[in-house]
Order: sequence, then structure tokens, then C-alpha cells
Amino acid sequence: MNRRSPTLEDVAREAGVSRATVSRVVNGVRNVDPGIQELVRNAIERTGYTPNRAARALVTRHPTGSVALVVSGAGDAFAGRVFADPFFGRVVNGVVGYLRSRAMQPVLLFAESPVAREQVVGYLRQGSADGALVVSVQPDDPLPDLLLAARVPTVLFARPARDTPVSCVDLDHYAGGRLAGEHLLARGCGRMATICTSPEVRAGRARLAGFRDALARAGHGSVPAAEGSFSLDSGATAMAALLRDHPEVDGVFAANDLMAQGACHVLREAGRRIPEDVAVVGFDDSSVAVTCRPPLTTVRQPVEEMAAAMAGMLEEQVRGVRTAPRTLVFAPQLVVRESA
Amino acid sequence: MNRRSPTLEDVAREAGVSRATVSRVVNGVRNVDPGIQELVRNAIERTGYTPNRAARALVTRHPTGSVALVVSGAGDAFAGRVFADPFFGRVVNGVVGYLRSRAMQPVLLFAESPVAREQVVGYLRQGSADGALVVSVQPDDPLPDLLLAARVPTVLFARPARDTPVSCVDLDHYAGGRLAGEHLLARGCGRMATICTSPEVRAGRARLAGFRDALARAGHGSVPAAEGSFSLDSGATAMAALLRDHPEVDGVFAANDLMAQGACHVLREAGRRIPEDVAVVGFDDSSVAVTCRPPLTTVRQPVEEMAAAMAGMLEEQVRGVRTAPRTLVFAPQLVVRESA
Repeated sequence: MNRRSPTLEDVAREAGVSRATVSRVVNGVRNVDPGIQELVRNAIERTGYTPNRAARALVTRHPTGSVALVVSGAGDAFAGRVFADPFFGRVVNGVVGYLRSRAMQPVLLFAESPVAREQVVGYLRQGSADGALVVSVQPDDPLPDLLLAARVPTVLFARPARDTPVSCVDLDHYAGGRLAGEHLLARGCGRMATICTSPEVRAGRARLAGFRDALARAGHGSVPAAEGSFSLDSGATAMAALLRDHPEVDGVFAANDLMAQGACHVLREAGRRIPEDVAVVGFDDSSVAVTCRPPLTTVRQPVEEMAAAMAGMLEEQVRGVRTAPRTLVFAPQLVVRESA
Repeated sequence: MNRRSPTLEDVAREAGVSRATVSRVVNGVRNVDPGIQELVRNAIERTGYTPNRAARALVTRHPTGSVALVVSGAGDAFAGRVFADPFFGRVVNGVVGYLRSRAMQPVLLFAESPVAREQVVGYLRQGSADGALVVSVQPDDPLPDLLLAARVPTVLFARPARDTPVSCVDLDHYAGGRLAGEHLLARGCGRMATICTSPEVRAGRARLAGFRDALARAGHGSVPAAEGSFSLDSGATAMAALLRDHPEVDGVFAANDLMAQGACHVLREAGRRIPEDVAVVGFDDSSVAVTCRPPLTTVRQPVEEMAAAMAGMLEEQVRGVRTAPRTLVFAPQLVVRESA
């Protein structure tokens, strides 16, 4: 709890012995007089020194039996926002269910700031868990590279923006966007718009491309788009902008369910009936898809299965099974409810 | 990852040495021939034996620098339901913010089943974290008693139903219910009803008592109540029952925000305007209070401050500051928005 962590040197000074003697007591690899051992242990306790676990792990190489699930991103009240997004609950369920059935302890960590990220990397580097499953909220997250550099077994949920040699599970987002577009076309919508994401988000870019391509094949060359940031509020703001600029809209594809819910709020407040006046399709099949009024037609990510597969890939790495980094891609599925 | 964890005996058999010799190598407390040390270490690696950390902690008494936040409850897709309840996000934010500022690593654990609970107790008993902050979803949670028996420093969010000698932070729930009742009375409501919780939930019971006492003081002796279970759906079901049996209702107090949101859905579908026809008051001031349409008037729990105080009390225990178990009680506050 001190700012500066006490070192081996601090313990040696406190105990009045050499650094090498302290090291021997800590690691237990050479004979040390019991009286001196006690001297050193008392000094360790007074200084609050924490032996480097990685060093000790080299002695015993013990697995901890726990696996970290790291939610990585940034911003104020990060954990609060993560908890507000039902997508993470499904990831956690998938991971927890898989690990529990193998008697492994899932441990959830947050890397919500540069300081937190360093703490998390330190925690994993010293062997406090056997490996890391990472869900990044930001496209340009430096965490995966840091974990690879620290030789922490790592698997990601969703392929990162930069080309990191790491295993992932991912969804065929392009196919998902196409499913949404084809469904709106099949309903007879003719003036579609979309609430998309920042073009930096690889998954969002692919969803948008799939959606646009489906419409283009049916002769709809230009599709109005407003950008959101995956939150309910951003979906509402984007929908308000679309309604203002394109009041004739009769079909909306939002790149996730929370933004679709925000869009539904705005449409209803503008007196539009859903789906009679405007059909709305979301993405994820998160819990809000069910609780939204009307319940959302959405593109389902098989998140629980993806999360379990991610944990399985990590288990292989931890067991020492060597494979080249690989990406396991899952197919999306359209779930039709009332909103479209 | 084996079903049965390898024991000291397994290592001894594998190395062809005595159990006592293995123990000496693992704990490093007596002189052992370097050749035999190597023999034992190789056997440890082959068997996958994990030395008991608690035993090793007795040698070096090192703090890990991490603190566990345990969300404890039961049921299918538990993590998903926890993530769907914005209350937990606020608790996590408060705990993470406090620990981070002290360079301690917050680690989130789920105890969602008896098996998981055992795993969590084992994880903490062996010293994988310095202590536990526990948020129980169920009134009769056995986890706090198990942690006390395992001598794990522990602080609870909310006083448990059974009388466990453990420190807690808690809210003055009675005062919160009274605030809700007084607000509805001040608005001019005269036919109030409430969506309460199971009487087994201590906090829910106190909220209901405070609400009823406020109304009784104003001459309202009998208040219709329907029971929910803190979820959105249960709030909707309870509201539907109240509307059916008491169509004249003009004010509703729900024991949490999610149930209040469910009530708003049902009221709106029944053509009642909120707050003109029926005023609705929630509890918690969770994120749904803001995203609900209309935004909810609610009783605010200072959750972040409570969570930080909980972490501070645990920090004292971990540092060895001895205090009798105590409960730190926080005052609620009414937050007026549009629903009442």
C-alpha cells in the first residue's frame, strides 16, 4: 500500500544481512541458519516486501488454476458502462460456465485506464492467473501487445484493429450486416438508414459494409448513416439526426441493440409506430433486445459459445499445446421479434 | 485441470522421496541436497502439484496486493443477470476507484452456485487475494460465514439476514421508504400502492416499513402491495396485478429502479400517463433511472461512496487494524426527475 514497493535491498538493510541471504530465504533454495531465517522473515513483515512471484513460479512452476477475463477500455465510470451493456454479461456467462466445468476459477479484471492496464499486466506477468481472456472496448487497445510481450497466454474476443499475432474468436460481422439488410428488404422497406459506429471499429465497419452491399444488390445505392458509440444515448441522438434529415425513413439498422433501443425511444416520441412506420433491426441479441418495447428483431452473436471457445483455446495454450495464432469465426443468425 | 488436485504424496511417490522431504523443498525451511531438490521440482512439474499458498504465506506472509469483490447469489445465467442490474456497476466503480488509487488490484469473482462458492472460498483461503468484499444477491447467503470460518478478511455490502459478526456498509432503507412515501403524499397522491420484495429481504422489508409508516402518519392505513424480485419483468407483472385489483391507483413506489421501469412499461401500455395519472418512484438511482422513459424519481443510494467505504474498512483489516465488527450506515436522498 506504499507508493514505492519495498525491495529485496530494503529487507536486507532492515535485517542486517546480505541481499543474497534474503534471496535464499525467500526462494528457499540453499541452507540458511534458522535464526537468520527468522530475522529475514521479520524484516519482510516489517517492510511489507512482496517476493516476486514470477521468480518463485520459476522454482515450482505451479499453475494457479485461475484464468483472468480482462475487460479493457477507458473512460469515466468504465465499470458502470460495462455493466450497463448486457453484451458483457453474456461474455462473462460463457467464460464462467466453461471454466467452472473444468474446476478453474474465473477472475474478472478491469483495465480502465493506463494505470489500471499496468497493474493488470503486472498481476498477470507475476503469474497470479494462468492466462488472460481479453475483451477490448476500444479498437486501438495496447493491452494485447503488452500481454504478448509479457509472455502471458492470451486469447481475444474479436480480432483487434492492429495486426497482433494472437488467437481470437470473432463473428462474421459482414454476414450479420447482410442479414439485417436482407430482412428489411424482404419486409418491403424502401428508404433505409443505419446507425453505424466509428469507422475505426473493425466489427462496425464490416457490419456496415454487409448492410450496404445487401441494399446495393437490390438497387439502393446510397444509405444515410449516422454514427453512434454503442450506447443507448448515442443511438437516440443518431436517430434524431436521421429523422431530421431523412423524415421519410422506413427502416433502420443499428449496429447494436442498445443503440436500436435508443432509436426506438426517439421514434416513439416522434409518433412513429414500430414496425408499421419504421422497422428497426439491432445487433447482438443482448438482454435489451427482449426487454425493449417492442422487442427487437436483431442479429444474434452466439456470444456464450464464442466465449466458451475462447476459454478453450486459452486452456490449450496454458497446457502448453503450441499452435499458430488462429481466429475462430462464428456465423451470425437473424432473430425475428416485433420491431422489424 | 485434473479433476483431483495432485497432493504432496503424489509428488513424493513420483520423486521417490519422503513426504517430509517434498514439504521441505516446497517450503524451503530446512537444508536439502540440491540434487534432491531438483528431483522434487521435476516431480512437482510432472504431477502439476500446486503448493498450498496459505502454507507458503505463513513462511513469507506476503500480501498479494489484490482484493476480491465477490458477487454472490444463485441461478441460471447469474452473471448475465448481475450485468443487467446497473446497481452492480456502481458498486464495482466505487470499489475499483478506491483500490486503484491505493495501487491495489481489484479482482471480481462470481459465486453463482454451491460449486462456485467452494471454489471462491478455496481461492481466498489460500491467499490468492488479501481479503473479500461481498455483495450478496440472496438474503440467506452462506458465503459470509464460510469466509469468516476460513479467516479471510471480509466486509459486506448490506447487512445480512442472519446475524453474522462481520463489518458492513448499509443504507438506512427505512428512511428511504419514508422519503418515497412523503414525496407521493406531497404530490397529492391519495391512492398509493407499492411493488415490494420478498419479506425475507431485510432491505426490502425496511423500505416497505418506512413507506407504510409515512402513509399511515397521513391517515392511509392500508396500502396494496405486490411482490417483485428486483427484475424488470417482475416489476411489470406486479404492476399488472396492482392495476387489475386497484385500477384507481395514482401513485406507486417500487423497491428498485428496474421494477419501477417494468411498472412504467405496463402503465404506459394501459394508457396511463406518468406522472399525470400515476406517479412512480423507484429506488437506487441506478442508470435505468436516467434511461427510463420518463426518467425516474428515485431514492438514491450513495453506492459509490458506500463501496469505497467498504474497501477502506477491508484495507484496515488487511493491515491488521483490529476493530469489532461494525456497520457503517449511509443516508438516502430523494432525486426528483419526471416520473413523480
